[in-house]
Amino acid sequence: MTAEPGTVRPGGRTARVRAAVLRAAGDVLAERGFAHMDLADVARRAEVGKTTVYRRWGSVTGLVADLLADMAEQSLPREETGSALGDLRANAALVQRTLADPRQGALFRAVIAAATCDERTAQALRRFYEVRVAEWAPCVEQAVARGELPEGTDAEAVVRAVSAPLYYQLLTTGVVPDAPAAERAARAAYAAAAAGVYVTGDAP
Amino acid sequence: MTAEPGTVRPGGRTARVRAAVLRAAGDVLAERGFAHMDLADVARRAEVGKTTVYRRWGSVTGLVADLLADMAEQSLPREETGSALGDLRANAALVQRTLADPRQGALFRAVIAAATCDERTAQALRRFYEVRVAEWAPCVEQAVARGELPEGTDAEAVVRAVSAPLYYQLLTTGVVPDAPAAERAARAAYAAAAAGVYVTGDAP
Repeated sequence: MTAEPGTVRPGGRTARVRAAVLRAAGDVLAERGFAHMDLADVARRAEVGKTTVYRRWGSVTGLVADLLADMAEQSLPREETGSALGDLRANAALVQRTLADPRQGALFRAVIAAATCDERTAQALRRFYEVRVAEWAPCVEQAVARGELPEGTDAEAVVRAVSAPLYYQLLTTGVVPDAPAAERAARAAYAAAAAGVYVTGDAP
Repeated sequence: MTAEPGTVRPGGRTARVRAAVLRAAGDVLAERGFAHMDLADVARRAEVGKTTVYRRWGSVTGLVADLLADMAEQSLPREETGSALGDLRANAALVQRTLADPRQGALFRAVIAAATCDERTAQALRRFYEVRVAEWAPCVEQAVARGELPEGTDAEAVVRAVSAPLYYQLLTTGVVPDAPAAERAARAAYAAAAAGVYVTGDAP
């Protein structure tokens, strides 16, 4: 565990309980999916009292929302390689490794599936991607400042374009994206950005 | 209903029953999702005997697989506009309208969610996209033949690239893609293809 939320004393008992419960929640989600998740099972795996889990998270939906908030806090900081293509490659490689990781990939598939029918999970998922995209957008902004990409480029749209084909492949074909798919995703987003596809209408 | 599978006499009773049951199955999926789908409910809505539905489709999974097979058969033929960008735009607009349609959009979200935890649905979904992508790939092949896109371009990869950002947006943010998103998706796929991103390694 790296970061903890500001409201919780790092290393305190509350933080340790949260870390253990979120770890167990992620394991259960990855193994069994959202529909078969059960707070009592999570409590048992986390070796935490059932009452604590019910009192603190209330429901499976509440627990998954907190798991996504924690994943957003802990998502790796961006890499800066000095070039837009290099940065987009680093981003694509990170997404690809996450989706290819058996536990993380299963976890994302389970959460995305749950978000299609549960509004609170959908909100938490949206928030997760907002945090992640905001973390990487400065790579594109810096490339625009360097004159590498056109003025008025929507930085967040470029970051989303890197992820899109990797998630699309996993969700529609079930085939885990590999390193060449990540390379193609980064190059495609870069080529489209360079061609001005993501320049917003009200740009200079 | 347009096409019917080769094994079933068009307009016959079997075909009419299948059409009514698949229509009801799509409605239930769109309204309630895969997890709450029930063959008896589908039979009631289709005004078809329960026994017929159980005997012919066996399970919810079997019924959803047949629904996807039917959707693949009926998916609209490609448009040919004379230019690669025009064809990709027509494709993007079709995907966008499908995902923005309340019934169809909900149906795709439900099936994609189900595919994350059900192998038979995953296979049927994969097959649906294979048929759809194969239908549109000739647009890209013709653009390569005309010299509009580079030799060795992977036509299917370009068609998938058009859909990816539209599905990604719907699945990760819950926001239904609009016409400008479709335009951006088509232009991005075209720019990346023109830049040679989808040229396969063993191309001439």
